[in-house]
Amino acid sequence: MFHVGSRSTVDLEEEITPEEDIVKSRLKEIPHNEKLLSLKYESLDYDNSENQLFLEEERRMSHMGFRCLEIRRWVICGLIGFLTGLIACLIDIAVEELAGYKYSAVKQNIEKFTEFGGLSISLILWAALNSAFVMVGAIAVAFFEPIAAGSGIPQIKCYLNGVKIPCVVRLKTLAIKVFGVICSVAGGLAVGKEGPMIHSGAVVAAGVSQGRSTSLKKDFKIFEYFRRDTEKRDFVSAGAAAGVSAAFGAPVGGVLFSLEEGASFWNQMLTWRIFFASMISTFTLNFFLSIYHGKPGELSSPGLINFGRFDSDKEKNFDYIPFESFLFFPYYFPGGMLGALFNVINYWLTIFRIRYIHRPCLQVMEAMLVAAVTATVAFAMIYFSNDCQPLGQDSTEEYPLQLFCADGEYNSMATAFFNTPERSVRSLFHNPPGSYNPLTLGVFTLVYFVLAVWTYGLTVSAGVFIPSLLIGAAWGRLFGILLSTITSSQSIWADPGKYALIGAAAQLGGIVRMTLSLTVIMVEATGNVTYGFPIMLVLMTAKIVGDYFIEGLYDIHIKLQSVPFLHWDAPPTSHWLTAREVMSSPVTCFNRVERVGRIVDVLSNTSTNHNGFPVVPGKICGLILRSQLIVLLKHKVFVERASSRLSQRRLQLKDFRDAYPRFPPIQSIHVSQDERECMMDLNEFMNPTPYTVPQVTLNRTLLPHPTETTPNNPYMTFTDEL
Amino acid sequence: MFHVGSRSTVDLEEEITPEEDIVKSRLKEIPHNEKLLSLKYESLDYDNSENQLFLEEERRMSHMGFRCLEIRRWVICGLIGFLTGLIACLIDIAVEELAGYKYSAVKQNIEKFTEFGGLSISLILWAALNSAFVMVGAIAVAFFEPIAAGSGIPQIKCYLNGVKIPCVVRLKTLAIKVFGVICSVAGGLAVGKEGPMIHSGAVVAAGVSQGRSTSLKKDFKIFEYFRRDTEKRDFVSAGAAAGVSAAFGAPVGGVLFSLEEGASFWNQMLTWRIFFASMISTFTLNFFLSIYHGKPGELSSPGLINFGRFDSDKEKNFDYIPFESFLFFPYYFPGGMLGALFNVINYWLTIFRIRYIHRPCLQVMEAMLVAAVTATVAFAMIYFSNDCQPLGQDSTEEYPLQLFCADGEYNSMATAFFNTPERSVRSLFHNPPGSYNPLTLGVFTLVYFVLAVWTYGLTVSAGVFIPSLLIGAAWGRLFGILLSTITSSQSIWADPGKYALIGAAAQLGGIVRMTLSLTVIMVEATGNVTYGFPIMLVLMTAKIVGDYFIEGLYDIHIKLQSVPFLHWDAPPTSHWLTAREVMSSPVTCFNRVERVGRIVDVLSNTSTNHNGFPVVPGKICGLILRSQLIVLLKHKVFVERASSRLSQRRLQLKDFRDAYPRFPPIQSIHVSQDERECMMDLNEFMNPTPYTVPQVTLNRTLLPHPTETTPNNPYMTFTDEL
Repeated sequence: MFHVGSRSTVDLEEEITPEEDIVKSRLKEIPHNEKLLSLKYESLDYDNSENQLFLEEERRMSHMGFRCLEIRRWVICGLIGFLTGLIACLIDIAVEELAGYKYSAVKQNIEKFTEFGGLSISLILWAALNSAFVMVGAIAVAFFEPIAAGSGIPQIKCYLNGVKIPCVVRLKTLAIKVFGVICSVAGGLAVGKEGPMIHSGAVVAAGVSQGRSTSLKKDFKIFEYFRRDTEKRDFVSAGAAAGVSAAFGAPVGGVLFSLEEGASFWNQMLTWRIFFASMISTFTLNFFLSIYHGKPGELSSPGLINFGRFDSDKEKNFDYIPFESFLFFPYYFPGGMLGALFNVINYWLTIFRIRYIHRPCLQVMEAMLVAAVTATVAFAMIYFSNDCQPLGQDSTEEYPLQLFCADGEYNSMATAFFNTPERSVRSLFHNPPGSYNPLTLGVFTLVYFVLAVWTYGLTVSAGVFIPSLLIGAAWGRLFGILLSTITSSQSIWADPGKYALIGAAAQLGGIVRMTLSLTVIMVEATGNVTYGFPIMLVLMTAKIVGDYFIEGLYDIHIKLQSVPFLHWDAPPTSHWLTAREVMSSPVTCFNRVERVGRIVDVLSNTSTNHNGFPVVPGKICGLILRSQLIVLLKHKVFVERASSRLSQRRLQLKDFRDAYPRFPPIQSIHVSQDERECMMDLNEFMNPTPYTVPQVTLNRTLLPHPTETTPNNPYMTFTDEL
Repeated sequence: MFHVGSRSTVDLEEEITPEEDIVKSRLKEIPHNEKLLSLKYESLDYDNSENQLFLEEERRMSHMGFRCLEIRRWVICGLIGFLTGLIACLIDIAVEELAGYKYSAVKQNIEKFTEFGGLSISLILWAALNSAFVMVGAIAVAFFEPIAAGSGIPQIKCYLNGVKIPCVVRLKTLAIKVFGVICSVAGGLAVGKEGPMIHSGAVVAAGVSQGRSTSLKKDFKIFEYFRRDTEKRDFVSAGAAAGVSAAFGAPVGGVLFSLEEGASFWNQMLTWRIFFASMISTFTLNFFLSIYHGKPGELSSPGLINFGRFDSDKEKNFDYIPFESFLFFPYYFPGGMLGALFNVINYWLTIFRIRYIHRPCLQVMEAMLVAAVTATVAFAMIYFSNDCQPLGQDSTEEYPLQLFCADGEYNSMATAFFNTPERSVRSLFHNPPGSYNPLTLGVFTLVYFVLAVWTYGLTVSAGVFIPSLLIGAAWGRLFGILLSTITSSQSIWADPGKYALIGAAAQLGGIVRMTLSLTVIMVEATGNVTYGFPIMLVLMTAKIVGDYFIEGLYDIHIKLQSVPFLHWDAPPTSHWLTAREVMSSPVTCFNRVERVGRIVDVLSNTSTNHNGFPVVPGKICGLILRSQLIVLLKHKVFVERASSRLSQRRLQLKDFRDAYPRFPPIQSIHVSQDERECMMDLNEFMNPTPYTVPQVTLNRTLLPHPTETTPNNPYMTFTDEL
């Protein structure tokens, strides 16, 4: 861990050397473009301030006290898991009900008009229903909580990596998110409800771990010890994991997700707690869903989406998959390519949106438009497709549309479109060979690809996992079919379902570029370890190929939101840059006893809104945070009143914790003219042991550490640009 | 990362303060008992020395150069996986063949003598065969490479945590290990071949990544860049993961194992490579074993042990397990208790061995004795048990012993004893209800427990996983049976196999106290995610209960080998201790230009054999390692010869890499009297940017960092003692 403060202290440690000017000049070489980064983002203080107050508390605390803390952590993680599971359950049931209602209504209508013609009315009905749902969702998001738009994974990724995104873990956000995702999925958009689960889990965690809701002005007076960024972030990573685990029924995948995306350092106990939360959440979901489905205790749906088990009867097939995974290596590349294509298009689309579609009403209208178009296109495709399939027993159809097919047959294009995306994915994986003809799949892939690209980035809360899986499954299955026609041998290639699976993995990997966690998630979702190897190969290829063209979708959106996000490694070419070259100078620092006036001025100076300030004189003797100073100012802990000071109650850690996390802005604190002349004693509040590095430390060495990031930290700008 | 050097530099940064003496006195309070720690252990230098040579290399390296390095890393991980898989395969086949031969020989003999009596001859034959096998293995270990004894997991755990155990990753060790484990398993001891796989994987990794074998004096001149502790350790963690994954067919479990046991900080790319290695290794094993079993491409054996899949027909049962996992919570406790009991007994036994059985020949004899006893006991139990079972179709018997049973029946006690442990475990998991009567299981548990305790710690290379699983499976199944007799309802409790599984998990968890990784390993080995939840609960309980009595088996053995091992967290009561109180003082440091004589003297001083030395004067300006100094001395890089210096070739990083890892001891380097008067310029070799902390930094803050541990680092002693 490493502070902007400590970074800036560097040049206090040595007197200015002649090279300084060389450095200055080299600093110019580094394009330092503020525009690339937004000033509205602060960073988490991921480093305990071990000041006197803290030490006193530590010493007071008994061995038992520490044990109790540990137990509380476990309890919190349990709660996080449980609540996340419940929310997932709620979303699932709501979507099922609404979609069920919608599709049956439309289905009846279509059937009614199929004979007499006039299907246009059904089309209008369908489109209207979709738009209605979407409108409600979009309004909620656009007008009440814009941060709830999209999947929320980019925001969580930022948060876990130490960037404080405003409002991202608020209760309100959660409410809007859940409501929004129900609407948008029920509205038939090309979206999934999995991404938002991760965000929801994170919010739940942030809420529960703090034992209060600032929005609701409700403080339960519990878990006060955890009211600081360090602890909170740990719980949030548990929440994200619980979300993943509820979304895909993949507890281990969840753990790996928060490690891969977030955890900047490894901690056994934390990981173990994260795992606990994930397990609880998937179990909770499973339990309640099984009750909802009327088979209590069957526990057959561990996640919001389950791919269904690829085994038993298909035994023979999946045993062969590892070989095919070698035989058809080239077939992995489409994943990366298509993924990159998706990202590129979406990138330009998003830029367009940022430029022209920023007014809420416009955003709502766009969302509605997309919904209507989706319905229309779907309808058109179902209408014009003449791909009729016999209505088998084992088909997973919910609403088989007969339309113009002969009796006992159904329109297979409808399987793909006239269905919740989750169902479509499952049917692409498991429907028996020959359920789709190649043309259907080809057209579907194309159309759905366009729709998905257009949809992601709308002002509705929705995930991109399912659409990606669906696209991939479609072309994967198509590939499988073509293959089985080429190779006459039916024995091995009999089942296109597994090609669908591989395709889905490839497409998803190509878009989001997750690796380890995604592999495990897919494996757990298929419930079959044998697939691990090919899936891993697919995802690796997808990532390599994709990265060649453009970065992952989430990173793109992070960048477009101009978040000062630090990646894992410094670009290799910058390895030899030293701390001195990337630190911000001149350094603003305070004395052990500082004039209140100066502190106020420094804090209110918007041009350099640092978050941490080294305390001097001479060599660094401590570091104090903006938030701490704010609290001190608020309680007017001024020294001049030496006489009254004894009477005046001393500041406790509690005061800081109560103020956390929403410290008032400096502007809101009124300091009178004569108070400005008072002095403030920082000694007992500053962190006497900040991390420091010599000027010549390599950038490469600094970067991997979780870093105190402030917008005007050159470092970041410059990492961002290389 | 954090250097003893930098720690000791602390008091250079401030002038001695009056509190110093208070500190000194407090230091006395901390019992500083050297005896607790062995001096023969050094530590890994897990921190790149960013000296001038290094920087020059970095700058010379192009963007492409870095990419190539990355690719090489991947290739190495692939190789590691492949070779580990092959070794696992070799071990498995060898054991199968030998055991097969042995058992069939004994079986025939027994059958021959069953009619005419005189079974004592069979007993002698069996015992003789066992002892013979074990003797060979024990001799190899005891006389040629004692470090190859046991499972090797404790050693690897130490290595991954930064302690350099002599010879632990040598080729010779690997050879002995593999040979030894084959002998001891074939010798019918109560041991498994899984633990040693982990060690083997680690050795393979260490070898491959260095591109040479120092033992064989063979240098392939490749991968030279990786010849330093930082890189090597990363590869070793990949090797360990590959080992786990080959042993249990659990790639994800492998990754989590090396993270849980070793990785002191988290790195995305590394983890992803580790996963790659694990995948390759399990796939390799699977592939070759399937060929060996004559069903190429069936890929049914992903690991050395597979529990077999708990599903399909048993569908109904395992769906219910999560509920039972709540209903029978108390039933988890035995795991912890028995585990603790196992550890306590083994602890005393090991102390006894250290005291009295240290001569190799004695050790060999003990091993043979145990082997003979094992055979005798087994024979006796089979002989006196009258538990005959009908010889079903679906029983997994390899060598069904009829003995005194009626025709078409077999002696079920023999199932447990007259078999490789892996097989016994599988049959306990999967044999149909009623294959064992409670008495058999009870007696078996008792006897096998005793044998296993006695066996672990013998001078043979052998793992403790399988015996633990076996004990647990036995009492677990017993419990299941009792339960099904109590609860009349046959529907749910029908299958005692799953109780066996839970019991196995509980027992193993109680002994080794692994948590996350073990859960995942078990889940992957059963190939069924649904079991994750109960297994997790079981392992948690086992750990909590067990830790109440005594620490895990591996930690016990680490401590008994008096390794200076740093645990994850400082004991809570020591949180408020500061760096000043735990650092070693007075500090031995050098000047930028130091007299050769002094360097030699300091290095040869055995009382304070520090590994890193701060370079002064005044404030710290760098850190130089013992190994670096040794190399400098060896190449006689002395300044006095300023004239000839230009001619004399400058030292390259290559020279350091070639000397790595076996730097000659200082004694072996001869420095003449007038050379002693020369000076040595450390400027370009020292690391100018070591990590430093202020004196008052909290112990708690220091500890989690991978620490440069030297034996006389008080820190460790004291952590060890609290």
